[in-house]
Amino acid sequence: MSLRDLLVRLQAGEVGVDEVVEHVARLPQRELGFATVDTQREARQGVPEVIFGLGKTPAQIVGVARALVEAGQNVLITRLEKDAAAVVTEAVPGLRYSELGRIARLTTTPVPPRVKAGKIAVVTAGTSDLPVAEEAAETLDALGLVVDRHYDVGVAGIHRILHRYDTLRKAGAVIVIAGMEGALPSVVGGMVRVPVIAVPTSTGYGTALGGFTALFAMLTSCASGVTVVNIDNGFGAALAVHRIASLREHAEEAST
Amino acid sequence: MSLRDLLVRLQAGEVGVDEVVEHVARLPQRELGFATVDTQREARQGVPEVIFGLGKTPAQIVGVARALVEAGQNVLITRLEKDAAAVVTEAVPGLRYSELGRIARLTTTPVPPRVKAGKIAVVTAGTSDLPVAEEAAETLDALGLVVDRHYDVGVAGIHRILHRYDTLRKAGAVIVIAGMEGALPSVVGGMVRVPVIAVPTSTGYGTALGGFTALFAMLTSCASGVTVVNIDNGFGAALAVHRIASLREHAEEAST
Amino acid sequence: MSLRDLLVRLQAGEVGVDEVVEHVARLPQRELGFATVDTQREARQGVPEVIFGLGKTPAQIVGVARALVEAGQNVLITRLEKDAAAVVTEAVPGLRYSELGRIARLTTTPVPPRVKAGKIAVVTAGTSDLPVAEEAAETLDALGLVVDRHYDVGVAGIHRILHRYDTLRKAGAVIVIAGMEGALPSVVGGMVRVPVIAVPTSTGYGTALGGFTALFAMLTSCASGVTVVNIDNGFGAALAVHRIASLREHAEEAST
Amino acid sequence: MSLRDLLVRLQAGEVGVDEVVEHVARLPQRELGFATVDTQREARQGVPEVIFGLGKTPAQIVGVARALVEAGQNVLITRLEKDAAAVVTEAVPGLRYSELGRIARLTTTPVPPRVKAGKIAVVTAGTSDLPVAEEAAETLDALGLVVDRHYDVGVAGIHRILHRYDTLRKAGAVIVIAGMEGALPSVVGGMVRVPVIAVPTSTGYGTALGGFTALFAMLTSCASGVTVVNIDNGFGAALAVHRIASLREHAEEAST
Amino acid sequence: MSLRDLLVRLQAGEVGVDEVVEHVARLPQRELGFATVDTQREARQGVPEVIFGLGKTPAQIVGVARALVEAGQNVLITRLEKDAAAVVTEAVPGLRYSELGRIARLTTTPVPPRVKAGKIAVVTAGTSDLPVAEEAAETLDALGLVVDRHYDVGVAGIHRILHRYDTLRKAGAVIVIAGMEGALPSVVGGMVRVPVIAVPTSTGYGTALGGFTALFAMLTSCASGVTVVNIDNGFGAALAVHRIASLREHAEEAST
Amino acid sequence: MSLRDLLVRLQAGEVGVDEVVEHVARLPQRELGFATVDTQREARQGVPEVIFGLGKTPAQIVGVARALVEAGQNVLITRLEKDAAAVVTEAVPGLRYSELGRIARLTTTPVPPRVKAGKIAVVTAGTSDLPVAEEAAETLDALGLVVDRHYDVGVAGIHRILHRYDTLRKAGAVIVIAGMEGALPSVVGGMVRVPVIAVPTSTGYGTALGGFTALFAMLTSCASGVTVVNIDNGFGAALAVHRIASLREHAEEAST
Amino acid sequence: MSLRDLLVRLQAGEVGVDEVVEHVARLPQRELGFATVDTQREARQGVPEVIFGLGKTPAQIVGVARALVEAGQNVLITRLEKDAAAVVTEAVPGLRYSELGRIARLTTTPVPPRVKAGKIAVVTAGTSDLPVAEEAAETLDALGLVVDRHYDVGVAGIHRILHRYDTLRKAGAVIVIAGMEGALPSVVGGMVRVPVIAVPTSTGYGTALGGFTALFAMLTSCASGVTVVNIDNGFGAALAVHRIASLREHAEEAST
Amino acid sequence: MSLRDLLVRLQAGEVGVDEVVEHVARLPQRELGFATVDTQREARQGVPEVIFGLGKTPAQIVGVARALVEAGQNVLITRLEKDAAAVVTEAVPGLRYSELGRIARLTTTPVPPRVKAGKIAVVTAGTSDLPVAEEAAETLDALGLVVDRHYDVGVAGIHRILHRYDTLRKAGAVIVIAGMEGALPSVVGGMVRVPVIAVPTSTGYGTALGGFTALFAMLTSCASGVTVVNIDNGFGAALAVHRIASLREHAEEAST
Repeated sequence: MSLRDLLVRLQAGEVGVDEVVEHVARLPQRELGFATVDTQREARQGVPEVIFGLGKTPAQIVGVARALVEAGQNVLITRLEKDAAAVVTEAVPGLRYSELGRIARLTTTPVPPRVKAGKIAVVTAGTSDLPVAEEAAETLDALGLVVDRHYDVGVAGIHRILHRYDTLRKAGAVIVIAGMEGALPSVVGGMVRVPVIAVPTSTGYGTALGGFTALFAMLTSCASGVTVVNIDNGFGAALAVHRIASLREHAEEAST
Repeated sequence: MSLRDLLVRLQAGEVGVDEVVEHVARLPQRELGFATVDTQREARQGVPEVIFGLGKTPAQIVGVARALVEAGQNVLITRLEKDAAAVVTEAVPGLRYSELGRIARLTTTPVPPRVKAGKIAVVTAGTSDLPVAEEAAETLDALGLVVDRHYDVGVAGIHRILHRYDTLRKAGAVIVIAGMEGALPSVVGGMVRVPVIAVPTSTGYGTALGGFTALFAMLTSCASGVTVVNIDNGFGAALAVHRIASLREHAEEAST
Repeated sequence: MSLRDLLVRLQAGEVGVDEVVEHVARLPQRELGFATVDTQREARQGVPEVIFGLGKTPAQIVGVARALVEAGQNVLITRLEKDAAAVVTEAVPGLRYSELGRIARLTTTPVPPRVKAGKIAVVTAGTSDLPVAEEAAETLDALGLVVDRHYDVGVAGIHRILHRYDTLRKAGAVIVIAGMEGALPSVVGGMVRVPVIAVPTSTGYGTALGGFTALFAMLTSCASGVTVVNIDNGFGAALAVHRIASLREHAEEAST
Repeated sequence: MSLRDLLVRLQAGEVGVDEVVEHVARLPQRELGFATVDTQREARQGVPEVIFGLGKTPAQIVGVARALVEAGQNVLITRLEKDAAAVVTEAVPGLRYSELGRIARLTTTPVPPRVKAGKIAVVTAGTSDLPVAEEAAETLDALGLVVDRHYDVGVAGIHRILHRYDTLRKAGAVIVIAGMEGALPSVVGGMVRVPVIAVPTSTGYGTALGGFTALFAMLTSCASGVTVVNIDNGFGAALAVHRIASLREHAEEAST
Repeated sequence: MSLRDLLVRLQAGEVGVDEVVEHVARLPQRELGFATVDTQREARQGVPEVIFGLGKTPAQIVGVARALVEAGQNVLITRLEKDAAAVVTEAVPGLRYSELGRIARLTTTPVPPRVKAGKIAVVTAGTSDLPVAEEAAETLDALGLVVDRHYDVGVAGIHRILHRYDTLRKAGAVIVIAGMEGALPSVVGGMVRVPVIAVPTSTGYGTALGGFTALFAMLTSCASGVTVVNIDNGFGAALAVHRIASLREHAEEAST
Repeated sequence: MSLRDLLVRLQAGEVGVDEVVEHVARLPQRELGFATVDTQREARQGVPEVIFGLGKTPAQIVGVARALVEAGQNVLITRLEKDAAAVVTEAVPGLRYSELGRIARLTTTPVPPRVKAGKIAVVTAGTSDLPVAEEAAETLDALGLVVDRHYDVGVAGIHRILHRYDTLRKAGAVIVIAGMEGALPSVVGGMVRVPVIAVPTSTGYGTALGGFTALFAMLTSCASGVTVVNIDNGFGAALAVHRIASLREHAEEAST
Repeated sequence: MSLRDLLVRLQAGEVGVDEVVEHVARLPQRELGFATVDTQREARQGVPEVIFGLGKTPAQIVGVARALVEAGQNVLITRLEKDAAAVVTEAVPGLRYSELGRIARLTTTPVPPRVKAGKIAVVTAGTSDLPVAEEAAETLDALGLVVDRHYDVGVAGIHRILHRYDTLRKAGAVIVIAGMEGALPSVVGGMVRVPVIAVPTSTGYGTALGGFTALFAMLTSCASGVTVVNIDNGFGAALAVHRIASLREHAEEAST
Repeated sequence: MSLRDLLVRLQAGEVGVDEVVEHVARLPQRELGFATVDTQREARQGVPEVIFGLGKTPAQIVGVARALVEAGQNVLITRLEKDAAAVVTEAVPGLRYSELGRIARLTTTPVPPRVKAGKIAVVTAGTSDLPVAEEAAETLDALGLVVDRHYDVGVAGIHRILHRYDTLRKAGAVIVIAGMEGALPSVVGGMVRVPVIAVPTSTGYGTALGGFTALFAMLTSCASGVTVVNIDNGFGAALAVHRIASLREHAEEAST
C-alpha cells in the first residue's frame, strides 16, 4: 500500500494517526526499500544469489546455500577453496564446482541467454591468469551473459592479440585480465571502442608486487576510458558488465 | 581499395606482385588501421580531438589547437592551468576556458545531444571535488552526453544522497567523485543498478595519501560491479561513459 | 602512609633518616605509583587483569592465569588461538573460551552492570568483522559495560544502518568496526553526537591492504570527531570506551 | 511542525493529502534531519559553524562567513593560511585570526564555559607541535570547553611530563600532540585513566615520514584505550572531546 | 715505470728498498689504477668527461668545465637546468645547450662515428618522454654512437610500433623510454632479439607514482632479457649501450 | 611458403584469391611471425624451449615437456620446486634437476659452446645468493654460453672482489647477484668496462625488504651503465646476456 | 644539598616539614635531575647549547641565541637556512655561519681539544653529501672533538677508500655518509674495527627514494656492528660519537 | 714474511723478480689482509667465529661448526630455529642451544670477562622482545662482555624504567630493544650519557608494520645521539657494543 493511499484512508478516518506515523517511520525500508525490491526481481529473473566464500566456514556456506535452494533460487559461491568445496558439494546436491575458477554453482531456474547484450570477451595475458578469468566467465554465464574466451594473448607476442582485432571490436564488452606489468588493457583499449574493464592479477613475483604493479599500470593506462576493478576480482568485473548489459537491455526495451 | 580488389587486379594482370607486396607491408595502418578510420568517423560526428595539456608548453598547445581548428575539428584541452590558458585563449579565438575544470573547448561543429544514452549523473562527495567533476562534465558535454550534476552529497550527511535515489536509478550511468575516505561510490553502488564509475580525488591531507586512500577504498568497495579510474581522472571517467553510451546507441541502431 | 605523615614521624623521632630515604627512593612506585594503586582499585571493582595471548606459549598463559585466580582476580585473555585455548582451558578450570572473539574469561568476582554508562553499541559492516566485534563485546562485558550488538549493517545496503538511527543516537558510545573500504564510521559519525570509535579490520583482499585502506579511510573521514584504534584492535576500542564511561561515572559521582 | 501535528490537521481537513505527501518526501531532511535539527540546537547554544579553509578561495570563505554572521551565528574558520587571512579578516569585521593555529573566530553569541566537562589538557611533545595544539585549543575554546595547555613536555626529558602527573589525572580529557617518534601518548596513556586522544604531527624529517611514523606509533601504542585522529588534525581531536563532553553533560542532566 | 722494471732496478742496485716499498704502497692507484688509466684512454679517444649537474651550483660547474677545456677534453654536462645553463654557457665559450635534454656539450676533439656498433634506436612511448630520450640521444652522440630516434610510438596505438619492426630488429641496441604504465618495452622486447634497455620516466600522475609504476612494470615484464635503469636515467641507458658497443668493437678487433 | 611465392602463384592462376586473402589474414603470425620464425631458428641451434614452472601443476609441466621432447627440442624448466621436480623427472626420462637452482634440463641436441661470446662471469655477494646464481648459470650453459663462477665475494671483505680484477675485466659480460644492501654491482661496475647486469636477491630480513632495498640500491648505483633485472630473476639476467652475445656473434659474422 | 642532609636537618629541627615536602616534590628535577645537572656540567666544559633551526622563525632563534650568549654559553644552531642566517648573524654579533653545513656557531668559552678520543674520521661517498658531512664536522668541532675529513671516496672508484685503510683503522670513530645506494659503510665496516656510524643522505633521484634506499641498505649491511642514524642527520651522528668519546674519556679517568 | 724482508732478499739475490711480482699481486690478502689478520687475533682471544643460520641447511651448519671445532675455535650460531637446532646439537657435541635467543654456542677457549668495558645493559620494553634481547645478550657474553638484563620496562609504566636511572647511567653501553611504537630508546637516550643502541623488534600487529614503525620512531627519536640497527638484529647491536668496548680497551692500553 502506498503512502498516498494510506493518507487518503487517514483522511477518510479508516486509519489512525499512530498507524500512519509508524508507517512513515519504516519508510526507508518499505517504500524506498533499496535492496528488497531488487532481490525479488532478481529472484524472478533466475539471477543467482551470491555467497562470498572467503573467510566463511564450510558449515556457514552450506547453511546459506541450502536456504537458497529451498527458496528455489540459483546459487553462486565464489572464492571457494578446494577443501571447503569437497565438504560443500557433498552437503548440497547438484552443486557443480570449478576448481580453476574456485567457484561453485547450482542452477534451479535456468537463466535464458541474454543475446542482446552481445558476446562478452574475456581476455587474459597469460595462462596463470586463468583462475581469475574463470571466476569472471562463470559469473557471466550464471548471469545469462554469453562468454567468448581469449586466453594467453599477452603483449610479449603482440600478434596474438592483433588477430582478435575484429572479434573484440564486436564484443558487448571486453574484460582484460593481466598480471605482471599489466600492459594488455592499454593495447586492447586502443583497439576497440566498446567498454573495457581491466582486472589486475596477483601473478608474478618481486616487482609485480602481488598485483599492485598491474593495478597501477592499468589505472595510468594511456588508453582512455578503461576502468579497473580490484586485484583478482573476476567476479567484480563480471558484475560491472552486468550493469552495462542491463542498461543496454533496458534501453532496447524502452526504445521498443 | 580493398585487399581483395587488389588481388583480383593482380589475377587480372593489372598490377604487379611488387605492388601487392608493398600494399600488404602497409596493411596494419591502411586496412586494419586502428586509429585512422576511427578518427575520421569521430571528425564526422563532431566529437572533439583532445589535447592533454599537462607537461606541454602553451606554444605547443596553441600549435596543435590551431591545426585542429583549420581542419574544422572541435577542440578539447584538458589539464590546462590558468596561466597557460591565458596565453592559449588569446592565441586561439573562440576557445572557452573553464578555470574550475581546468579545461578549454572550441566547438566548430556542434555535437547533437545523445538523448538515447540517458542523463549522465556526475556526483561529488564534497565541494573540493568540483575541479574533477567539471573536467568530467565538460568532457561529457563535449561528447554530446547530457550531464546531471549532484554536488556535495557525501556520506557524512547521508540524507543528501538518499534524496537522489530515484534520479540516480534512472541515469544512463553515474560518475561518483570523492576524496578523503572515498565512501560515496559504495553507497551509490548499493542504491542503483546502472553502471557506476568511481573517481578518487586528491583532496584531503595526511592519511588521505593524495587520493590513494580513496582509490583503494573504491577498489575494495563492498558494492559489486563498481569500476574505478585513476586519481583525479574526470576525463577518463567521461570516456568510459562514452564507451558505454556508444554501445547502447549501436545496440539501439542494431535493434531497429 | 603519606610522605607528610612520615616526615612528621621523623620530626618526632619515631622513624630514622634511613627509613625515610628508602621511602622516597621508592616514591614513584609507592606514592605517585601510577600502576599499583589503580590495580588495587580495579581488583576491588572486579575488573579483570588482561593477558595478551599473542606470542605467548600456552604454558606462559596458564602460569599467569593461575596466579591471578589464586589472587582472587577475574581473568581476561585476548588473542588466544583455538589450539592454545584447548590447552589453557583444560589447565585453568572455570575459564570460558569464545572461539569467534579469540578471547577467554574467568569471573571470580562478578562485575555489576555499569548502567549509568549507557548501552555501548558495537556495530559491524560485514559478517567477517565479527571476530573483532566479539573481542570488543566480550571485553566490554568483562568491564561491566552493557553491549548492544548491530552486526552486518554496511553501507552497500544503506537502509540497514539508517534503521538503527534512534538506537545509536542514545548509545553511551558507538564502536564501529569495518574492513575493506571502511566507510561505515563516516556514516555513523554523521548520524550521532555520542563518541564514535572506529576499528578497521583486516578483512578483504588486494587493495584492502590488510586493513590499512580501512584505517586510512577512517582517519580521513569526513565526519568530525571520530577517533580510531589499531587494525583488528577490538580490545583497544573497548578500553577507550571504558575511559569514557569511567569519566562519566566519576562526573556523576562528583555531581552528586 | 511535527509529522504528528500535520497528520492531525489532515484528519481535521485543514491540509490536503498532497501537502502531507510533499512533507514526507522531505522528511529525511526535515524531521529525521540528521544535520538540520542539530544545527539549530547548536546555533541556540552558541556553538560556531565551522568553515574548513583548505582548498577554498578567500572569496568563497568570505561568502560563507558573511552568511553566518547575518544569521547571527558564531564563526570558526580552520586551516586558514596567513595570506588568505589578511583578505578574510578585512572583509569580515570582528573576525580574530590566530596565525599560529591557522584559525579565525568571530563570536556573536558567547558560549558559556562548560565547567562540568572538566579542564581539557592539551599536551605537546615539542614546540614545533604548537600550530596543531593551537588549532585544537582554539576549537575547544570556541565550543565552550576550558583548555589547559602543557607544551614542550616530550619524552626525551621525561621529568617534564612526570611533573604534570596530578594535573593530567584530573583532566576531563587529554589531547596529546606529538610528531617524530610519537612516543608521548604511550607515556600519558599509562599515567592517566581519563580519555586520551592522540594527534600525530608532520614535524620532523626523513624517517618521520611526514607524520606517519608518529601516527603508526600512536596506533600501536602499548598503552591501552588511546585513540587517534588524522595527522595534524587538532580540530578533529577537539571535536572528539566535544562528543565526550556532551555525553557527560547529558549524563549529568539525566542524572539530575 | 712498471713494477717489474722497478724490481729489476732494485736487483741492479739502482734503487733502494724504501723506494720500492713506497711504490708498492701506492700500487692500487698507480699500477692497478682502476680509473686513472681508463681516463687517459678515454681522453685519447675523445670521449667526454661527464659533469652531473644536479645539486651543483653554476659556479662549481663552470669551474670543472673550464678545467676540462684547458686539458683539451670534451665536456658533457647532464641534468643542467635552464637557469644554470644560461650562466654556464656564457662562462664557457663553445658550450652548446639542449634545453629539451637538459644537457650541454662542448666538443674539442671530435669523436669518429662508431659505425661498427650499429644504429642505436631510441624509442619513446609518448611526447612527454622526450627530455629523457634526448638525454640518452645526446650522450650516445657524444660517445660517437649513431642514434636513430623513434618517438611517440606507445602501445595505445599499437600499429605505430609495429611499423618499426624491421628497423628495430637491425639496431645495435634499443633504448625504450616510457612513463605511465611502461608497457612499451614488453612489446619491443617481444619483437627484437637485440639488447633492449628500458628507461621508466616520471610522466603521468596519480597511480603513475612518479615513474615507479613504469619501473616495476618494466622489471616484471613478460618479455625476457629486458634490463632496466633508474627512473628518467637516459644517461645511464646510453652508458649501458656504450658498454655493449665497446665489447662488440673489441670483439671485432680481437677477431681481426 | 613466402607471400611473394604465393602471389606469383596467384598470378599464374595456381591459387585463388580467397586462398591468398586467408593467407594474408594470418600474416602477422606466419610471415611477419615474430615468435614463430625465431623458434625454428632456435630449435635448429639447439637452444631449449623454456617452461616457467611457477604456478603450473606438475601434470601441466610434464605435458609441455613431453611435447617438446617429441619435437626433438631441448627443455629448460625454471622455478621448479623440489616436490614438483620429483614428479616431473620421473615422468620425463633424461631430465636432470638442479635443486639449488630450482631448474631442470634435458638436452636432446647439444648446443656447441659459444666461445666467441667470451666467458660470462656470474658473481655473488654471499652464499645465500647461490640459488639465483645457479638459475642464471644453468640457463647460460643451456644457451651454450661459457660460465665463470665467482661466489661469496661481497663488499664487507673487499679484497675478495679486488682479486678478481683482471678476470672480470676480460669477461664477455658480468652478472652480479646480491641481496641485503646490494652494493656489489657498484664496485664491479666501477672496476670493469664490459656490460654489467645486476640481479637483486630476496635474501636478508627487516629492511632488506625482500629484495627491494638491493633493487633500489642497484638502480641508483653510482657506477654508470649498470642495468638491472627483477628480484631473484637469474633467468632474465642470462637472457639479457644472450641478447648481448648474439649481437656480438652476428657482428663478427657480419664483419667476416 | 642532598635529601639525606635535609632529613638530618629536619630531625634537628632546622627545617620544617613543609620545606621537605616541597623539596621532594621537585625531586625528579633537582636531585634525580636528568637534564639540569648535565646542563651545568656541559656549560662548565664549554660544550654549546644546541638550537635546532628547522621550523623556527629567525626571531625565535635570535631570542634563544641571545639568552645563551648572556649566560656565557657557547651557541650551536643547526639546520639554519641561508636567508634566516642573514638575519640571525646580523642580530647576534660573533656568530659564524657555514652555508655548506647550514650551521652557525658562537664560541664564548673555547672547548679544549679532546685528544684522548682520537681523530674522528668523517667520510663521504660523493660531493653532494658535503652539507651533511659539514653538519657533522662542525658539531664534532664544537664538542671539542678532532675531525679528519675524507670526502668523495665512494665505492664506484674503490681504490679511493682503500687508500685510507691505515688512517681509518686508527680513528676514534668513523662517520660514513652516503646517499644513492649507500654502499660505503659496508666497505668501511669491513675494513675497520672501530665504531662506524652510518648517515644516509637524501641525494639522488628516482629509486634513491629521498635517502630511504641508502638508509635501508645501511641497516641491512653485511658488515656487522655498523649503526645508523636518520637521513641527513649529521648532527645526530656527531652526538653518537660524543657519547662514545665521553665513555672513553671517563674510562681513562677511572683507570687513572 | 713481510714485503720489506722480501725486497731485501731480492736485493741479496736470494729470490727472483718473478717471485716478488707474484707476491705483490697477492698483497691485498696477504699483507694488507683485512680479514685474515683479524681472524687470527680473534682466535687467540677466544672470540667465537659466527655462523648465520638463517637460510642454511642443518647439514651446512654442522659442516662449518665441525671445522671450527677442529680448528680449536669457539662457535656461535645465530638465527638457528628449533628444528635445525635438534639436528645440529646432536651432530656437534658440546654445543649449547638457547631456544629463546635462537642461538647456539660452543666454548673451547673461555673468553675472560672484559671488565674494563663496564656492564652492558640490555633493556627491553616488553616480554615479547626477549628473543632479540637474548640474541644480543648471548652474543655479548660470547664476546666476553658482562651483561646486565632489564626486561619489560616499557614506557606505558614509566616508573619501571625510572627506577633503573642510576644503574643505566653507569653502564658501558645500553642496548634498548622495543617493538610496537618503539618509544623506550627516546626515554633512555634522554636519561643517560653513555652510548645507546636501539633495536626495533617485529612484535605487534597492524600499524606496527612488522617492526618498521619502531625502526622509524627510533631513527627520528627526539633524544640525540641514539643509533639504530636492523629490525630484530640483536646480534648486530652486540657487535656495535663490541666495537665501542674494543676502542675503550685499546684507549686504556694506549694510555697505560
